[in-house]
Amino acid sequence: MSDLPSHVEIHEEGPREGFQIEPGPITTDRKIALIDALSTTGLGTIQVASYVNPKRVPGWADAEAVVQGFRPKAGIRYTGLWLNEKGLERALQQRDRLSLKGGISLCASEPFIIRNQNRNLAENIRVQHAQLAIFKANGIPVDGISIMAAFGCNFAGDIPVATVLSTVADGYAIAAEHDIQVKSLSLADTMAWATPASIKRVVGAVRERWPDLRINLHLHDTRGLGIANAYAGLEMGVASFDSSVAGLGGCPFAGHKGAAGNVCTEDLVLMCEEMGIATGVDLDALIAAAQLAEEIVAHPLPGSVMHGGTLAKFRH
Amino acid sequence: MSDLPSHVEIHEEGPREGFQIEPGPITTDRKIALIDALSTTGLGTIQVASYVNPKRVPGWADAEAVVQGFRPKAGIRYTGLWLNEKGLERALQQRDRLSLKGGISLCASEPFIIRNQNRNLAENIRVQHAQLAIFKANGIPVDGISIMAAFGCNFAGDIPVATVLSTVADGYAIAAEHDIQVKSLSLADTMAWATPASIKRVVGAVRERWPDLRINLHLHDTRGLGIANAYAGLEMGVASFDSSVAGLGGCPFAGHKGAAGNVCTEDLVLMCEEMGIATGVDLDALIAAAQLAEEIVAHPLPGSVMHGGTLAKFRH
Repeated sequence: MSDLPSHVEIHEEGPREGFQIEPGPITTDRKIALIDALSTTGLGTIQVASYVNPKRVPGWADAEAVVQGFRPKAGIRYTGLWLNEKGLERALQQRDRLSLKGGISLCASEPFIIRNQNRNLAENIRVQHAQLAIFKANGIPVDGISIMAAFGCNFAGDIPVATVLSTVADGYAIAAEHDIQVKSLSLADTMAWATPASIKRVVGAVRERWPDLRINLHLHDTRGLGIANAYAGLEMGVASFDSSVAGLGGCPFAGHKGAAGNVCTEDLVLMCEEMGIATGVDLDALIAAAQLAEEIVAHPLPGSVMHGGTLAKFRH
Repeated sequence: MSDLPSHVEIHEEGPREGFQIEPGPITTDRKIALIDALSTTGLGTIQVASYVNPKRVPGWADAEAVVQGFRPKAGIRYTGLWLNEKGLERALQQRDRLSLKGGISLCASEPFIIRNQNRNLAENIRVQHAQLAIFKANGIPVDGISIMAAFGCNFAGDIPVATVLSTVADGYAIAAEHDIQVKSLSLADTMAWATPASIKRVVGAVRERWPDLRINLHLHDTRGLGIANAYAGLEMGVASFDSSVAGLGGCPFAGHKGAAGNVCTEDLVLMCEEMGIATGVDLDALIAAAQLAEEIVAHPLPGSVMHGGTLAKFRH
């Protein structure tokens, strides 16, 4: 009846997603405090900074100081985000503090990538080739493809499954030219169009064609379906998810609690653990980090478990 | 791979759930305005009042005036809630305004029913027999069993599937003594313990034993799993749900947006409609009602679609 995995890997993106969108200003110290709190939770991957244009994203103007300041804990992969060569150069300057990993970054919607990164799909493929050369020159491992807007797009509407499949195939073709073996695929529901049914359709179609690919889901909760979509993914055997502590992130009109951002880490952890799927995360420590996040941004965040509480406390 | 129904029935409980918990005070006129707005949405069943002790639930002290004041629309079932004989007497006084339907109301947790209704399970069974006699004397149809705390309890912990099955069997035994044919079963996740996996386990076990029973789910969203649980229900063929516009209702510490109450009607409608499951509801009209609810309670409500918007607008 389902194919639930025995354990999942969770990539925490709260600091990066949250601080890029919060009106703030939030001091560097407070950003570091949240990262350090997340380091105590058992999360294995934490995205700690975004090397983006400080004029466009003032909330990450202090990326270097944050990365320099947090206390790394052994065994945790700390990652950063970049969108272009300039950002990658900045990340490389701090590679002793980060686990840099490259990827082939594609998009299932041409109108979206034009708006988001000011290049069309063909141009983006050229950019990917250039990036792969830089990754190689700098010894940065590459093992995966990621696809934005894989489930729908505010500018292109519904995205056919065939478009996702051809985009994955584009990624394989790019990888082949660089002798890269593709091991993972991240499907992003960038504008919150997915439903549990479309998650199953798309993941099922991808698995049918590339059965050995490790699939990751990057889900948004703008329309309240984030956790249901994660469950649909779990039922398809997906064992890797991006998420944000306290549901940090999301629409630029932050502060408006309904404009939920990424799927909430502690809600995802509770669902998994209550269904017997191991996450490696200490839920109480994670809730403490979520409450710290709420204190830092100084307005209510959309997470549910951080307000509603765990079930474990009632079992004792 | 799943057994999604082609259409679902949604029982709107926002007015009843919301006004019993909101600190208010909310005027009778505003309550009526919300009910009238909901009547324009296509919802087929709306619970419009709670005939409970005004000392314990001051928000419903004006139940009679609300029921007298709203504008009924043909084809909609307007229902009321009562918990004891006194409440039923009040509902009977307004039966020309309401669709009264009786039920056999049970609980899967003895500690919960003691706290909630000040009687143990054996006493509750006696109360049910007495109520059925009153329903019969007043010509009120009875067709179903409802079970509170069917998925877990803050006072009893996890509820074994066997306990739910034996509680359903108790309901059948009570019905048999009154020559009542049981057609429906409502399973309530009163304290938000359910996960998609436990929804499937419990619904599956009930369907195996009583395959013809129409199952309804009453879900809470305290831990963010409400919509995922609804999806799990849909996958098991469940085609009837209780929900609250804007996510009204929930924990008494209202105003704290995280303490989400019932699963949110418009989020449920969006998920269903986007998966091709008909609800009969006009989502735009429902969002307008949700926004009115937020205006009436004067603080943000937990619904997502009311803030994040529909997908339909991007398709035009």
